[in-house]
Amino acid sequence: MDVAPILVDLFILFAAARAAGELFESLRQPAVIGELLAGVIVGPHVLGFVGVEGEEVLEVVAELGVIILLFTVGLETTVGQLRRVGRSAFLVGVLGVVLPLVTGTALVLGFGRGREEALFVAAAMVATSVGITARVLRDLRAVTSPPARVVLAAAVVDDILAVIVLSVVAGLAADDLSSVDLIGSVAGVAVFLVAVLWAGPPLLRRLSALAHTPLVPRSPFVFAVLVTLGLAALSGTLGLATIIGAFVAGVIFEFSREEIATQIEPVGEFLIPFFFAVTGSRLDPAIFADAEVLGAAAAVSAVAILTKLLAGRVGAASLGRLSAWTVGVGMVPRGEVGFIVASLGLGLGVISSEMFGVVLAMTVVTTLATPPVLSVLTRRLRRAQREEREG
Amino acid sequence: MDVAPILVDLFILFAAARAAGELFESLRQPAVIGELLAGVIVGPHVLGFVGVEGEEVLEVVAELGVIILLFTVGLETTVGQLRRVGRSAFLVGVLGVVLPLVTGTALVLGFGRGREEALFVAAAMVATSVGITARVLRDLRAVTSPPARVVLAAAVVDDILAVIVLSVVAGLAADDLSSVDLIGSVAGVAVFLVAVLWAGPPLLRRLSALAHTPLVPRSPFVFAVLVTLGLAALSGTLGLATIIGAFVAGVIFEFSREEIATQIEPVGEFLIPFFFAVTGSRLDPAIFADAEVLGAAAAVSAVAILTKLLAGRVGAASLGRLSAWTVGVGMVPRGEVGFIVASLGLGLGVISSEMFGVVLAMTVVTTLATPPVLSVLTRRLRRAQREEREG
Repeated sequence: MDVAPILVDLFILFAAARAAGELFESLRQPAVIGELLAGVIVGPHVLGFVGVEGEEVLEVVAELGVIILLFTVGLETTVGQLRRVGRSAFLVGVLGVVLPLVTGTALVLGFGRGREEALFVAAAMVATSVGITARVLRDLRAVTSPPARVVLAAAVVDDILAVIVLSVVAGLAADDLSSVDLIGSVAGVAVFLVAVLWAGPPLLRRLSALAHTPLVPRSPFVFAVLVTLGLAALSGTLGLATIIGAFVAGVIFEFSREEIATQIEPVGEFLIPFFFAVTGSRLDPAIFADAEVLGAAAAVSAVAILTKLLAGRVGAASLGRLSAWTVGVGMVPRGEVGFIVASLGLGLGVISSEMFGVVLAMTVVTTLATPPVLSVLTRRLRRAQREEREG
Repeated sequence: MDVAPILVDLFILFAAARAAGELFESLRQPAVIGELLAGVIVGPHVLGFVGVEGEEVLEVVAELGVIILLFTVGLETTVGQLRRVGRSAFLVGVLGVVLPLVTGTALVLGFGRGREEALFVAAAMVATSVGITARVLRDLRAVTSPPARVVLAAAVVDDILAVIVLSVVAGLAADDLSSVDLIGSVAGVAVFLVAVLWAGPPLLRRLSALAHTPLVPRSPFVFAVLVTLGLAALSGTLGLATIIGAFVAGVIFEFSREEIATQIEPVGEFLIPFFFAVTGSRLDPAIFADAEVLGAAAAVSAVAILTKLLAGRVGAASLGRLSAWTVGVGMVPRGEVGFIVASLGLGLGVISSEMFGVVLAMTVVTTLATPPVLSVLTRRLRRAQREEREG
């Protein structure tokens, strides 16, 4: 196998993403917007510099990048902090699933589409992909703010619910809805997360005492990488997003955090830009040329955005109005789970290729729209807090 | 696409490689031996825990690992140091190509095989894969010793000659030996390397002055990653090993070396073990069950080892006897280029599947045999130098 063409792709993605990222930073905008746009431009649909060969490889490298990102963000959070925002996060997560599911189904039925197609499209509108939000918050050094904590915890709730929704919808489409399977898989996921969050911190601490044996890596950083890869893989195997496992890995690592954070930083600098560039490269701007598709995409995107905003505004109301809106914006981006649901529906023949394009457009719009709005809100929130302290 | 199975593979490879590596370190052996053996054991031919799905992805992640490794090693070398060992390195490189090519062809002809098969097998015996040697020397902190410098420079010479040999042999097999093509490609490679080594250091220094613009990354580490990916990709595109480009990238980066080395370290801790584990996973111990294949593999491996030892002993004689043998041992491992030549021959129908197995066995034997011998010699050399200084 000749790896040279893939290395060329990786080089182009990295070079374009970093250059655009630095350009946006010099304009005092989040680097992530530049990285996404760089991906759109060099991707297969515009300039076509990358993405024809070795797409699977690009996706895995991108996935490693977002896993590192969510681990890093998890490292700035503790189990106690997650528990403290639990109530708001739970509300935001539940509302953020129920609202787009119900409204999305109604909307697609309103287009004159069938019940199953409507359910599939709505299911694809459910799951927040917290990578974009995590990155913007990190670029702005706001990962430890209250809205950031709520978003991160809500993303965990959201993802569990998304698994349930996906199982039900796929079961309906395949006429094979076994309630036993469903309860089993959901119980498995819930047990997994609760067990890891509850038993993880003391277990890791105890294991780290074995670092003089070959059982546990001597370096806390290597140990952390091992746990992150393991939990991400396990999480993905259970049907959750792999980044949920990576985030949890960061949360439960309660020792040597500064050392680990310092060492993971360059790994992230190398790998994270690939995630955003590869995400951008999936956008085919040509899909917006067809007026009907464009209209449907606009309506679906609007519903996808408004329902998450509302979920945040209502679910996180106890944080105050500005923070609650920030939570809502933070929950807007949809990503890989939406793709997976839509691809599944396309494969089952339940989703038409136009509605597939609409779902893709929705994930792109929600992804690209979030960074600028989220950074404005985060900065405004910070200013308000400063004024309050000073006033 | 579901990335979870690939993440599971990556987790198993990383966990097994690190555990075995730490075990070998605690036995005062190079970690790399443990990583290779871990790969053999969890690989598809023994336990079968990894390597069935997503093989291409594993190869690219492994490749990124060895690219980072060779960049790191290059960072400890300067253009001036390469030039100083140029004469010995040139001799070692030329002898190390001519001897296995001639002896290998004779040996395979002696097995009663045809001229083309003999030439292909011999061509696969030519190219040193300097990754293993670089790793052992680094584990023993001996990258800056004179034999290490000669090996690294000789690997560059060796690789250029291997490209020539491969072009000629493939041209013969395809009855399409265009001397113009050949001269063109060889001239291209030579011009590329000389130009990069000559113009690289001042060019990078001048570019780094532009780090306040989006043209050049602000962080020297990111700049270094960019240059490394770029030169590795270019090197691979020109038909050289990608690691030659990565090594050269390290050599020409003459500023911010300590900062870059500190930041690349954790990236390497993450990615490098994949290269050795994936390399190990390719070994099918079952090929040693057939007596005839075993005999041929033993003979080919013996010739592959002895010719490189001799090339080192003669070519680097000016360094003294012990250092010259060390250079020879350092040149023994064969790797990806051997695989590529053999796969090409198999694809052209010139190499039989048994001889393909023999070539694979030779690359594995030379790879596994090198670390223990090289570490004994390196330690003995160090002791001899210490005694000389003290005596």
